[in-house]
Amino acid sequence: MTQAKLHLIKTATEVPLTINVTAIDENGVVQQKSVACERPLTVYLNWRPIVTLMTLGARPEALALGYLKNQGFISDVTQLESVIVDWEVNSAAVITKEQAQDLDAKLAEKTVTTGCGQGTVFGGFMEGLDNISLPEPHLKQSMIYSLLRNIAQYNDTYKNAGAVHGCGVCIEDNISSFVEDVGRHNAVDTLAGEMWLKQQDGGNMIFYTTGRLTSEMVIKVAKMGIPVLLSRSGVTQMGLELAQQLGITMIARAKGRHFLVYHGADNIEFDDIQSNQAVTQER
Amino acid sequence: MTQAKLHLIKTATEVPLTINVTAIDENGVVQQKSVACERPLTVYLNWRPIVTLMTLGARPEALALGYLKNQGFISDVTQLESVIVDWEVNSAAVITKEQAQDLDAKLAEKTVTTGCGQGTVFGGFMEGLDNISLPEPHLKQSMIYSLLRNIAQYNDTYKNAGAVHGCGVCIEDNISSFVEDVGRHNAVDTLAGEMWLKQQDGGNMIFYTTGRLTSEMVIKVAKMGIPVLLSRSGVTQMGLELAQQLGITMIARAKGRHFLVYHGADNIEFDDIQSNQAVTQER
Repeated sequence: MTQAKLHLIKTATEVPLTINVTAIDENGVVQQKSVACERPLTVYLNWRPIVTLMTLGARPEALALGYLKNQGFISDVTQLESVIVDWEVNSAAVITKEQAQDLDAKLAEKTVTTGCGQGTVFGGFMEGLDNISLPEPHLKQSMIYSLLRNIAQYNDTYKNAGAVHGCGVCIEDNISSFVEDVGRHNAVDTLAGEMWLKQQDGGNMIFYTTGRLTSEMVIKVAKMGIPVLLSRSGVTQMGLELAQQLGITMIARAKGRHFLVYHGADNIEFDDIQSNQAVTQER
Repeated sequence: MTQAKLHLIKTATEVPLTINVTAIDENGVVQQKSVACERPLTVYLNWRPIVTLMTLGARPEALALGYLKNQGFISDVTQLESVIVDWEVNSAAVITKEQAQDLDAKLAEKTVTTGCGQGTVFGGFMEGLDNISLPEPHLKQSMIYSLLRNIAQYNDTYKNAGAVHGCGVCIEDNISSFVEDVGRHNAVDTLAGEMWLKQQDGGNMIFYTTGRLTSEMVIKVAKMGIPVLLSRSGVTQMGLELAQQLGITMIARAKGRHFLVYHGADNIEFDDIQSNQAVTQER
């Protein structure tokens, strides 16, 4: 219903996600290679420029909404009128009837940074963390393995060109939505925007990312109401502390049959340990 | 001389870079693991807060200077009076006699993003790119291999805890300086701050990074006057286009004996191809 309001001049599928280039390998041989696209997308809220994101461009409308929502600029999906993406001018114009509360104040605040370690997240980002209460998940090791196998079917751009991060929201071992981006936080915001638009509850979901679990990544997933974080990469101290505070089950270094549970191991039923040992013996 | 002006209340070595935690592995076994620290550092310029960076905290004074310099807030190292880092309050206070040109205007501009794909780089970031003219390097494949072997001695935090990126400035196969951070752009800015403080010319240097070569990474290295980029990861389309425009030799996917030259292959003497073929045959 809310989605029907959206008018996209151009859909993301109209821009390529990779381009072909030539590179010289270590043997001096010319190789045909794919490279991930990176393009600016300036996000406007009611005709006011908010930020320019460097993005792969896979789902710009969801990215723009997710960014604005995660930064606290917009909150009421029913007031949303349109998101108009125009790659001719690299813009995503979001129109809402909602009064963006103290937009000036938010634009003035520059006190919390993005998880890439830099840049600026506008005021409002940390708001509402105290109110978050996440359900306690019950996970099975065998389901985690099944999910990791299913995710291996995704991240086409990464397989093709590398240089992107992938994120997915999953219910048990099914991937509800998966997106890749040159910026890992763009990928998170894109999924956040989608879930917000569809008014999905993250309570029964698992959030998968190829990226590191830094403070901002954990905060964003908590705001999506998702109680489980699964990453191919590692964690930082602040990411772990936030997961402990917010009650997020944090599983990192998840690749093949290996993973490390940094928080919430009690929520995991280790029902597939045997085969791990078998695998170990085979090595 | 300029360095002598710096008074550090606390040096970076006074904060730990990793902490020890326990994690449960896939066999349900408790493992002792190290995790990279992540802490906020609010950068003040003449007592005015500019940004909060999430950083490992290895070299906060150089990071603060490099960030301010790369964002165009400061430019004259001789006007620098002090950088006071205080981890008690997570602050880095930079004092300069230099008039930070139109600081308000720069703080108001939020139109170019960081290479992580998000956040905000203040006005001035793109300034001066047209004036950049980089020397043409002459590289030997054998030297690249020697450099990669030497770099393997570094990135202690990564080996210990993961979840960080490493960057180094190198002259031939010698690493002049190497730094790690949870944010790859913090690592770049830290080296930029160091070189600026020492008034080093990057013309004979190679910039190594474990991170992806996105647009902002290339721009920052060009501003450091360094004509060669060497990365363990891949490149994006905009990173490549900027390297072509700015005349930066761009070598990516450099690991072991493998690499891909995306731009500037003419500057590389392939003097070690034989052993590659040998290695290939051994496989």
